Amino acid sequence: MKIGVLGAGQLGRMLALAGLPLEMQFSFYDTSGAPSVGIGNVFIDQGGTGKDLDSFLADVDIVTSEFEHIPLDLARKIESRKMLLPSSESTRVCQNRGEEKRLFTKLGIPTPKYHLVDSLAAFESAVEQLGCPVVAKTVTDGYDGKGQAVIRDPADVASAWNRIGNTQLIVEKFVNFSRELSIIAVRSKSGQLAFYPLTENTHHEGILRYSVAPAPRISPELDKQAQCYIGELLEALNHVGILTLELFETEQGLLANEMAPRVHNSGHWSIEGANCSQFENHLRAIADLPLGDCQAQQPTCMINIISEKGDIQGLLRLPYAHIHLYGKDERKGRKLGHVTVQADSYKELTWRIRNVAAHLPGSPEYHPTENR
Amino acid sequence: MKIGVLGAGQLGRMLALAGLPLEMQFSFYDTSGAPSVGIGNVFIDQGGTGKDLDSFLADVDIVTSEFEHIPLDLARKIESRKMLLPSSESTRVCQNRGEEKRLFTKLGIPTPKYHLVDSLAAFESAVEQLGCPVVAKTVTDGYDGKGQAVIRDPADVASAWNRIGNTQLIVEKFVNFSRELSIIAVRSKSGQLAFYPLTENTHHEGILRYSVAPAPRISPELDKQAQCYIGELLEALNHVGILTLELFETEQGLLANEMAPRVHNSGHWSIEGANCSQFENHLRAIADLPLGDCQAQQPTCMINIISEKGDIQGLLRLPYAHIHLYGKDERKGRKLGHVTVQADSYKELTWRIRNVAAHLPGSPEYHPTENR
Repeated sequence: MKIGVLGAGQLGRMLALAGLPLEMQFSFYDTSGAPSVGIGNVFIDQGGTGKDLDSFLADVDIVTSEFEHIPLDLARKIESRKMLLPSSESTRVCQNRGEEKRLFTKLGIPTPKYHLVDSLAAFESAVEQLGCPVVAKTVTDGYDGKGQAVIRDPADVASAWNRIGNTQLIVEKFVNFSRELSIIAVRSKSGQLAFYPLTENTHHEGILRYSVAPAPRISPELDKQAQCYIGELLEALNHVGILTLELFETEQGLLANEMAPRVHNSGHWSIEGANCSQFENHLRAIADLPLGDCQAQQPTCMINIISEKGDIQGLLRLPYAHIHLYGKDERKGRKLGHVTVQADSYKELTWRIRNVAAHLPGSPEYHPTENR
Repeated sequence: MKIGVLGAGQLGRMLALAGLPLEMQFSFYDTSGAPSVGIGNVFIDQGGTGKDLDSFLADVDIVTSEFEHIPLDLARKIESRKMLLPSSESTRVCQNRGEEKRLFTKLGIPTPKYHLVDSLAAFESAVEQLGCPVVAKTVTDGYDGKGQAVIRDPADVASAWNRIGNTQLIVEKFVNFSRELSIIAVRSKSGQLAFYPLTENTHHEGILRYSVAPAPRISPELDKQAQCYIGELLEALNHVGILTLELFETEQGLLANEMAPRVHNSGHWSIEGANCSQFENHLRAIADLPLGDCQAQQPTCMINIISEKGDIQGLLRLPYAHIHLYGKDERKGRKLGHVTVQADSYKELTWRIRNVAAHLPGSPEYHPTENR
């Protein structure tokens, strides 16, 4: 089976590394002009003439995506010619924070209080009703802290509007959360479902730094609750493939933050940590193969390599470190790779995480959540 | 770093899958005309004009090999232009069973009793001195049971000579072994050594079927003994990369059977079963990076998929099965892929192996050695 991937970055690369042992072949369609995938056929669309798109589509049996910011008309055009999984409908909802939140609300999935605004006046009124602090985000684009503002004083609304002002913003009540969690689930073409355990995510400067799976101190009820939420989303979207739901853990329970219709950075731990990684399960799902086992075998942590590659030789000397580099040049804030570590206990895991982080300049200190 | 691999089969493919996350790039040089690697640049030498060899060598920083049957003059030609690791000296010794056994003997590594013969008369005399049964093998070529004969009656010597007769044969006293073991070790360019645990191998119709690591019921002394033997071989050959030594376990202790200067089928378990697989360690060794951890995390078994792919859907349904297919068409006796399973105990491992084998037609029944 020939898989076409929209995008040609590290997620596409990890998909290919997971799919080659299942005798899948890979082609990538890149519009950024800077593919780092380093594997398979890469079609670079220069100027969007569509010629490269034709060659790409002629080369593949089925199309999937490594990112959700595909122009919708492109997704629909592809869909008219080849099977696109997940479909353009998943893309449409997930690439718009407004649509996303509306779906959460419709399905009864709790979220932080929010208003959708499309003018300065509406923005001001939303801030007044919600009460500061609030987080304002563009409904489209923006990730890893870009295109958003935290408003602590109503007087700052106008400057935030001028800075990130868009046709539409989502304004959310600032949530007092104890930690950020995510759940990754997968649904196959014939409707089989499988769930990875809740993962605990630590961000720094708006970028994911650490993901620990299974998240420690999760009751079976909470895990079940998260599965229930993402299960409803998968069905409502008729989604095929991996779906990721980011959640806040609060005193009022789980609140849905956002979702991504794709393999996710907070699931990279599964390459070593689960019997079947998110990458392999995404491919099994779209190829309509039986889904693989999602359980974490033992406490596992994924540590992102951001901005600089750091002391790779030192990392290679750590017997428990699995190093994944993405073939990208160093640049501030860029995800260049990740390291996975596992341990028998969370205590030992913490030491191992710190030993890895010591070789990565700029990594924030790691503190297990109970000690924060 | 750009790695050039001589050969373009499944071993090259698994090398590339291990090396891409370390930002290595891969090119393959194939003379068989049937590359199955499905990854990297493949240079197919049509008629051995050398043109393709030039392009291949221009494309890479360092050259390694996935098989030991490279013509020696080709290995030396490559070596005069690029770093070849392991070197042509390792190749020269390992591709000749006579040279190999002489080195074992020189280093004091016990072997079955053997004679090297190059005529029917010498063959007859060897059989007389060793006493039947003996195994006769061509000193070059031949693997997985090809190019060899078991002689149970001196009257059969002439017909065996006619069938497998070569310029030189090695005639070995048939060994009464309790099981076949192998040890895989790795030596880096700067001389660092690391050892995988002894692995128990089960053959059927001359082809490896099951490898269990660590081999059960191995005393620390026996493991040490095997490490000592392979360590001496690595040093004597000034070998860089993975080396595999096949051994017989007998009442007189370990006897060396043969060695291979490359990643080996009996080490495929290490992809899931060790922190650092044989493929990654081979690449670390030739790139002179620190070597990775070789320990088996828990009892692990590699089951070969031979001749037919079998019920892949059924295998995908087993939550503990890791499936590796090589992108090759079915053919009698051909290695088409392998499945890895792990378990907390050898008892549970046996059940899992049998569940896997049930989906692979033609697989011999698996019996743990203590029950044979």
